[in-house]
Amino acid sequence: MLTVIGIGPGSFAMMTQEAIAALQEAEIVVGYKTYTHLVKPLTGDKQVIKTGMCKEIERCQTAIELAQAGHKVALISSGDAGIYGMAGLVLELVTSQQLDIEVRLVAGITASIAAASLLGAPLMHDFCHISLSDLLTPWPVIEKRIIAAASADFVICFYNPRSRGREGHLARAFELMREFTNPQTPVGVVKAAGRKKEQKWLTTFGEMDFEPVDMTSLVIVGNKTTFVRDGLMITPRGYEL
Amino acid sequence: MLTVIGIGPGSFAMMTQEAIAALQEAEIVVGYKTYTHLVKPLTGDKQVIKTGMCKEIERCQTAIELAQAGHKVALISSGDAGIYGMAGLVLELVTSQQLDIEVRLVAGITASIAAASLLGAPLMHDFCHISLSDLLTPWPVIEKRIIAAASADFVICFYNPRSRGREGHLARAFELMREFTNPQTPVGVVKAAGRKKEQKWLTTFGEMDFEPVDMTSLVIVGNKTTFVRDGLMITPRGYEL
Ligand SMILES: C[S@@+](CC[C@H](N)C(=O)[O-])C[C@H]1O[C@@H](n2cnc3c(N)ncnc32)[C@H](O)[C@@H]1O
Ligand SMILES: C[S@@+](CC[C@H](N)C(=O)[O-])C[C@H]1O[C@@H](n2cnc3c(N)ncnc32)[C@H](O)[C@@H]1O
Repeated sequence: MLTVIGIGPGSFAMMTQEAIAALQEAEIVVGYKTYTHLVKPLTGDKQVIKTGMCKEIERCQTAIELAQAGHKVALISSGDAGIYGMAGLVLELVTSQQLDIEVRLVAGITASIAAASLLGAPLMHDFCHISLSDLLTPWPVIEKRIIAAASADFVICFYNPRSRGREGHLARAFELMREFTNPQTPVGVVKAAGRKKEQKWLTTFGEMDFEPVDMTSLVIVGNKTTFVRDGLMITPRGYEL
Repeated sequence: MLTVIGIGPGSFAMMTQEAIAALQEAEIVVGYKTYTHLVKPLTGDKQVIKTGMCKEIERCQTAIELAQAGHKVALISSGDAGIYGMAGLVLELVTSQQLDIEVRLVAGITASIAAASLLGAPLMHDFCHISLSDLLTPWPVIEKRIIAAASADFVICFYNPRSRGREGHLARAFELMREFTNPQTPVGVVKAAGRKKEQKWLTTFGEMDFEPVDMTSLVIVGNKTTFVRDGLMITPRGYEL
């Protein structure tokens, strides 16, 4: 039995009942070391297998093999495991190999939703998620999506906005959006939501400083109606008040 | 003190720690009756104020006034309160009236993420949320977003796909997407995720039957790479396996 668990952005408070119960029931916990560390208070003296960054396939295979051997395994992912996380890879591996193990998926609070609740209510209208990592996606596909989203006035949540070696991606995304996006459009950034080093700030599309944004940050660009009042980023749903 | 709580799609299992704690701490719980019913086991003999559908402004005002009178109020929203929910409206009302009450926002599992975890891993790549309700959004804006999202190959999650009086919206959305979307593209539908009447099914873009979809349903249309294997809807992240 393999349970793929979205542990939320980092705080115990944002974990679901189901995620906590699944972690407690597991015999072995597998995950990227930052995340196994985050859930340490919940895993007690269970066996914990920590793997490094970019070892996704290896990590999933390890979890799958342990499950095949009859163990109750929990594979953890930050946020929701089905959003740029481990769930898809596990299902691809298990179904392509026709393995006979039970896989359970436990939903989690993804970074965009956690960030939004810290900034105000920026996601009250149609929005999209775009990852700016081109490790697994050709950059032209990403560019096309940025332009489509901006031209149709979606609120945009950027995942992986500025990873090491890809420092220019966020600035390039803004360049592509400039044609459609007013310089006054509010932009919210949340770094390490729900973790010790949590930080957040608001700026505008025109005054955006890319430098402080890193790979633990989530960037939300508003739509044409988004405004900031009392330090809160709000996208109105459209009620007449 | 007013806490706006996303209670998740319906099951206790998908509620966060924080949501449960906030409900327990509240003196008065305000919400649409379906949702106050869902959390009944958690609210015990607290005062619960149930309001009808489409009474969003009234509901928020009631909660705000009770908070101003010094009560600890919990306003509940299904899913995440910041996604087509009550959070934005509360912040709009509180900030525009310059009220001096503390508002806390508690993130929840939104319908798309809950639905995705029940279907497999359809949201592993860039996706967007589009609401097909034109009560508060001009229909041409919605059409523009549908076309943009389909043309840039986003996975699309449709909220409010077929409400009463708007039965044709989902079919119209598919009509607009036809130019970009292969008939074989997998489509997943989840009705009442996490609730007693939960149902889910998979179909394809070309064979989609709109009739069984209702206002408690979430519809996910895959992107060009999405496939179904072993009854699971999977959008690959792009790893070479
Ligand atoms: C590989 S993705 C994993 C996403 C994760 N599965 C989720 O649902 O949130 C990593 C990216 O998610 C975002 N992210 C993850 N955790 C975050 C947090 N606690 N605060 C802000 N952003 C976060 C960042 O954009 C980061 O570059
Ligand atoms: C007004 S929106 C509220 C969304 C909610 N705040 C959320 O984050 O899920 C209502 C729409 O959300 C979707 N929805 C809400 N709860 C659902 C559930 N339990 N199962 C499937 N879809 C749901 C449906 O598309 C419904 O028409």
